[in-house]
Amino acid sequence: MGFCLKSIAKILSRVLAMLGASMFLPVITALAYGENDCVRSFLVVALPCIFFGVILQRIIPYSRHNMRLRDGFLLVTLTWLLLASIAAVPVVISGSMASWFDAFFEMCSGFSTTGATVCEDVEALPHAILLWRSFSHWIGGMGILVFAIAWMPALGISGQEIAEAETPGPVLSKITPKMSETARDLYLIYIAFTLIETVLLMIGGMGLFDAVTHSFATVGTGGFGNYNDSIAHFGSTYIDIVITVFMLLSGINFNLYFFVLRRKVSIAVKDDEFKAYILIFTVATLIITFYGTFSNTFDGFFEGLHQAAFQVASILTTTGFSTCDFALWPPLCMMVLFVLFFIGGCSSSTGGGIKVVRVLIMIRMIGRSAALKLHPNAYITIKYNNRKFSTDTVQGICAFVCLYLFTLFAVTLWVALDNYDMVTSFTATATCLGNIGPGFGSVGPAENFSIFSNGVKFVLSLTMITGRLELFTILMMFSRRFWLPDE
Amino acid sequence: MGFCLKSIAKILSRVLAMLGASMFLPVITALAYGENDCVRSFLVVALPCIFFGVILQRIIPYSRHNMRLRDGFLLVTLTWLLLASIAAVPVVISGSMASWFDAFFEMCSGFSTTGATVCEDVEALPHAILLWRSFSHWIGGMGILVFAIAWMPALGISGQEIAEAETPGPVLSKITPKMSETARDLYLIYIAFTLIETVLLMIGGMGLFDAVTHSFATVGTGGFGNYNDSIAHFGSTYIDIVITVFMLLSGINFNLYFFVLRRKVSIAVKDDEFKAYILIFTVATLIITFYGTFSNTFDGFFEGLHQAAFQVASILTTTGFSTCDFALWPPLCMMVLFVLFFIGGCSSSTGGGIKVVRVLIMIRMIGRSAALKLHPNAYITIKYNNRKFSTDTVQGICAFVCLYLFTLFAVTLWVALDNYDMVTSFTATATCLGNIGPGFGSVGPAENFSIFSNGVKFVLSLTMITGRLELFTILMMFSRRFWLPDE
Repeated sequence: MGFCLKSIAKILSRVLAMLGASMFLPVITALAYGENDCVRSFLVVALPCIFFGVILQRIIPYSRHNMRLRDGFLLVTLTWLLLASIAAVPVVISGSMASWFDAFFEMCSGFSTTGATVCEDVEALPHAILLWRSFSHWIGGMGILVFAIAWMPALGISGQEIAEAETPGPVLSKITPKMSETARDLYLIYIAFTLIETVLLMIGGMGLFDAVTHSFATVGTGGFGNYNDSIAHFGSTYIDIVITVFMLLSGINFNLYFFVLRRKVSIAVKDDEFKAYILIFTVATLIITFYGTFSNTFDGFFEGLHQAAFQVASILTTTGFSTCDFALWPPLCMMVLFVLFFIGGCSSSTGGGIKVVRVLIMIRMIGRSAALKLHPNAYITIKYNNRKFSTDTVQGICAFVCLYLFTLFAVTLWVALDNYDMVTSFTATATCLGNIGPGFGSVGPAENFSIFSNGVKFVLSLTMITGRLELFTILMMFSRRFWLPDE
Repeated sequence: MGFCLKSIAKILSRVLAMLGASMFLPVITALAYGENDCVRSFLVVALPCIFFGVILQRIIPYSRHNMRLRDGFLLVTLTWLLLASIAAVPVVISGSMASWFDAFFEMCSGFSTTGATVCEDVEALPHAILLWRSFSHWIGGMGILVFAIAWMPALGISGQEIAEAETPGPVLSKITPKMSETARDLYLIYIAFTLIETVLLMIGGMGLFDAVTHSFATVGTGGFGNYNDSIAHFGSTYIDIVITVFMLLSGINFNLYFFVLRRKVSIAVKDDEFKAYILIFTVATLIITFYGTFSNTFDGFFEGLHQAAFQVASILTTTGFSTCDFALWPPLCMMVLFVLFFIGGCSSSTGGGIKVVRVLIMIRMIGRSAALKLHPNAYITIKYNNRKFSTDTVQGICAFVCLYLFTLFAVTLWVALDNYDMVTSFTATATCLGNIGPGFGSVGPAENFSIFSNGVKFVLSLTMITGRLELFTILMMFSRRFWLPDE
């Protein structure tokens, strides 16, 4: 086959053990809330995972071959599918969800940080399951294997192969040789954000459990909430502001925080993508605020600003929380949110979607093409952060955007088999592919994905994972060439 | 300014005279049908056009400078806007349409070969106006200035500047030095198609007037009909088949017909774009036929094939005729048509949209990017018709597709100001930008564009022209650099 199967199996078994270990979080929660069914359901999965994970990892010998890029793609795909499948088992066993399709959808939505749910009454779920859902956002946000690299080094891989396949956004520069150190620093920032948000939410009157789960879902830009009306449940402007700020922080390229920590704030602030991200947020918020206030959708300007900023941050960062039903907004305001569906967060953030950097490069590419039409022999380059962008990188970005659209159309055709209207089929697909959460029509912020058939739910589950892994990783699995040996 | 204004003015005045002369077609029609109001309305515009056109063209001296690319872009923009504006005047004077916005929309829709109408009752229009609408399709289909070059050589320009700005699809190779000869040959094929279709339609029982106007609208891939229910009015399978075939023929790259005329059929048949075009048509037709038959939308397989083939050909070639209301089809079938909205005809055909060749190159670019992800140092090229495609051409295609999407979103936001639902706003914009005709929702095949406000109608009018001129031509007018002198 030409694959480094030993190394892949070794890492997979380590991930399996990790997954089992992490199930003690819901177990503790279940014990605290006296949810005995859940204690049993999680233990019955956790223990075999740990057992077989540890055993297999010891049995499988180290491979003498280095992993190559294709091994990275295969490993990442297997990891995500395996995790989502196994994580769904306790959800089904505990009786929280009747069908395996529902539980698989829910966990794919969790790990991919989408936040779309098939659960009609979230409030009826046990605390252990709610925590498990939020925790999957938290793990998926930064990357399952980045996690593995960060806390379990000496895996025998440099990490570049995995970063290529799992990190969101075009990988612009080689990651430092000390990949595991970088990954650990990233996770420390991530943990700090989670802790700070939890404390701030508790100051706002949230209980510990709600504060932790909502922090997981915010910094992972996931969007699962514990209540049927999402964040509107709390009815607190303070909480809305805290969550808005942390959604925005999580949508920023985490590498910029390194600069901030090293007291090089000016570099972070001058980043092209960061500036564009802030600009998009500001313009979208202002359009919705002014038009919504003008058309009496909101009770005054400040209420409008509050609602608009929250919803724009939620969609732009692909979190998917809501404080109101934007499906009731005027069409222009809805269309602004719809446009944000196709932008997404910054590269190397926990946000999904096409990513701001790609949109930025597309705009510069249009400018370059227009200039070339007037001066066909001119030498014009595309710059980003004052550095020249190679033609191959630009073409890679174009290819990504095209593939994104093709996937969107192809999956929409499949979803249309369920005979819902065009808006529902199209935005359900777009929200899953972009890892956002709510759509429009019958999958609006006040609705859920339970309306779909199992076949559609399954394809949308895979679409969420495909979107999270930035398409190419999954696409390769369908290419004959990927499976053919090179030599 | 740095523009070759003398040459531009000279050509514009010639175009003006031509427009005036062509108004004798509706004048004759009006005389034949005794529509005296129309005779007066057209004459009162035609005579000054001819008078001033001829005079100005004689007064303005030849420029000593050669036209450059930027002159071509300015000339083409001015020509199309001038023509649509003046062509709208007799429509308003004759009282056929009350508002200038409506008439301008209708003529932009005509010249851009869109076929979207603001007229609620087409059957109430005088024959002269109906002919004028169809004739604008015919002129716009092959290009106004291509027409000028073909029949009035010695304009002092090589044609390359204009071809760059007016011909649909990426210009892949330099057009022969004898541009005027090529243009004339193209028009001869075009005229032959029009005549043959007219005769075939008359054999099917259509009257001369209907046959001519529908032929104009077919070969120009326009879509204006003379009846409120479009082609369904005739209720003839024979007529449907004839129109289907001629829509498909008009959506093919006209350069391929040169090969056919030179008995090199094999070259034409092996063309990558042609093969993809036929494949897309076949697959889309079969999906709709089978799913529609299966879900009892059609009365049996052959009726399904008939309806599916017509509607697919109509949308794919961006004509916009209809034989049934596809808004009543199952969502999957509608979604297939919706996907076709983003493909369009072949390059150098009379069809609009993104064009098959661009979709094809995008797919190959995705394949190249996937291969590069596995083998970053490999040298992989994109081939088209067995020739290597330059990186700049590929990037130009990407830039076009990105600009297409940005324009689509930007105009949709404007259209949303009229407070129609998302499907209506989005597909109204998409159908205008792609020069198709019908959309979905409140602008479906059984509806029209009269619902919109004047502001939206005006922007959609410009969008149709922008789409027909493939975006960059109009985009440049908004760029400061375009207006700055180079030297």
